[in-house]
Amino acid sequence: MKQAKISEAVVRRLPIYLQVLNELHSREIQTVSSQELGVKLDLNPAQIRKDLAYFGEFGRKGIGYDVIYLIEKIRQILKVNQTIKVALVGAGNLGLALCNYNKYAKDNMKIAAVFDVHPDKVGTHINQLIVQPMKELASVVESENIRIGIITVPAHEAQNVANQFIAAGVEGILNFAPAILRVPDDVRIHNADFTRELLSLAYYLNHEDGEGDTDESAMD
Amino acid sequence: MKQAKISEAVVRRLPIYLQVLNELHSREIQTVSSQELGVKLDLNPAQIRKDLAYFGEFGRKGIGYDVIYLIEKIRQILKVNQTIKVALVGAGNLGLALCNYNKYAKDNMKIAAVFDVHPDKVGTHINQLIVQPMKELASVVESENIRIGIITVPAHEAQNVANQFIAAGVEGILNFAPAILRVPDDVRIHNADFTRELLSLAYYLNHEDGEGDTDESAMD
Repeated sequence: MKQAKISEAVVRRLPIYLQVLNELHSREIQTVSSQELGVKLDLNPAQIRKDLAYFGEFGRKGIGYDVIYLIEKIRQILKVNQTIKVALVGAGNLGLALCNYNKYAKDNMKIAAVFDVHPDKVGTHINQLIVQPMKELASVVESENIRIGIITVPAHEAQNVANQFIAAGVEGILNFAPAILRVPDDVRIHNADFTRELLSLAYYLNHEDGEGDTDESAMD
Repeated sequence: MKQAKISEAVVRRLPIYLQVLNELHSREIQTVSSQELGVKLDLNPAQIRKDLAYFGEFGRKGIGYDVIYLIEKIRQILKVNQTIKVALVGAGNLGLALCNYNKYAKDNMKIAAVFDVHPDKVGTHINQLIVQPMKELASVVESENIRIGIITVPAHEAQNVANQFIAAGVEGILNFAPAILRVPDDVRIHNADFTRELLSLAYYLNHEDGEGDTDESAMD
């Protein structure tokens, strides 16, 4: 079961492969070539073959990859079969959206507890979960064996929430707040701050248009 | 004003630099070294110096970078001074969260219109915006000069919404739906699907723990 260390870039592409493969599977498509995956994902087919070769070579010349086999293999690598419990702090609209999404997700993630710093949110229901006060966080993380914390609070509250998650023993944090958080080396942090995506998206719009198209700046 | 083509990886880091510099500025810190930025961002200082050198060298040995100057320079490159109008389709919790965030954002983005495919959402208010029916999308995108479309609908509706945005003439799409969308080459698409972040985060937890720690799989 040992495999070569997979680069971060490849790890970040695995969920995307899984997504497109699941979609092919739902349409009862049984094999797919690196060319077809390349078109779907806007990636070089050679890059795809290289990525997939990281965990053994399954593609067959003229036939391609077996969709079900590849799904199983990637699920195995991402250990999607194993349920990982997640806690969320911040029962606002974003927190609600994530909890609702959770209801339909087939992934390995389960939001097992929701917390909020504001007394008026505590005690309200989100699906089957009751929003709990922050003072319960440490004991719930331990008793529920929660390994990932999701932060959906405003930026100025985010580091404090992260500190409490870390003190409680979570191994990973998914941060939605537009703030740079400090975590110790043994805690993994991923950021899902959409403002970054918007800003970098805007960079490309502005530049691809050339310098002539600046009507907007004169309009507001 | 011409500058060398900036790599995608650097473009994606620019909003992060901007975020940390804004934070330093709010604490009235005037200069910062690449070492200090490296610690804050968990990046190699040499990488930071290389990134910042893309658009001219501002760091001074023993003094570091001028925070305000660097903020201005990055804002200029990202053209943050220019307001870019954005439309959002999908007035659910996530759409609501983005609209609320928009209220507080100092960035160059302005959500100028919200649409929904479901009649019961149409006509409701989100902040100052009235949720509009999809049949208005094309004319509003044109009359309001909207350049980016945000998609916060379920996965199975996302491609259809993307097609309508593209037909209406948007130049970029920020997609929150867990779906791979096909767009023409002249439309830029960024994905903000948080399930990918969660899956890749889980990969690291599972692997860093070693093979012994699989209690969770036996518990559910």
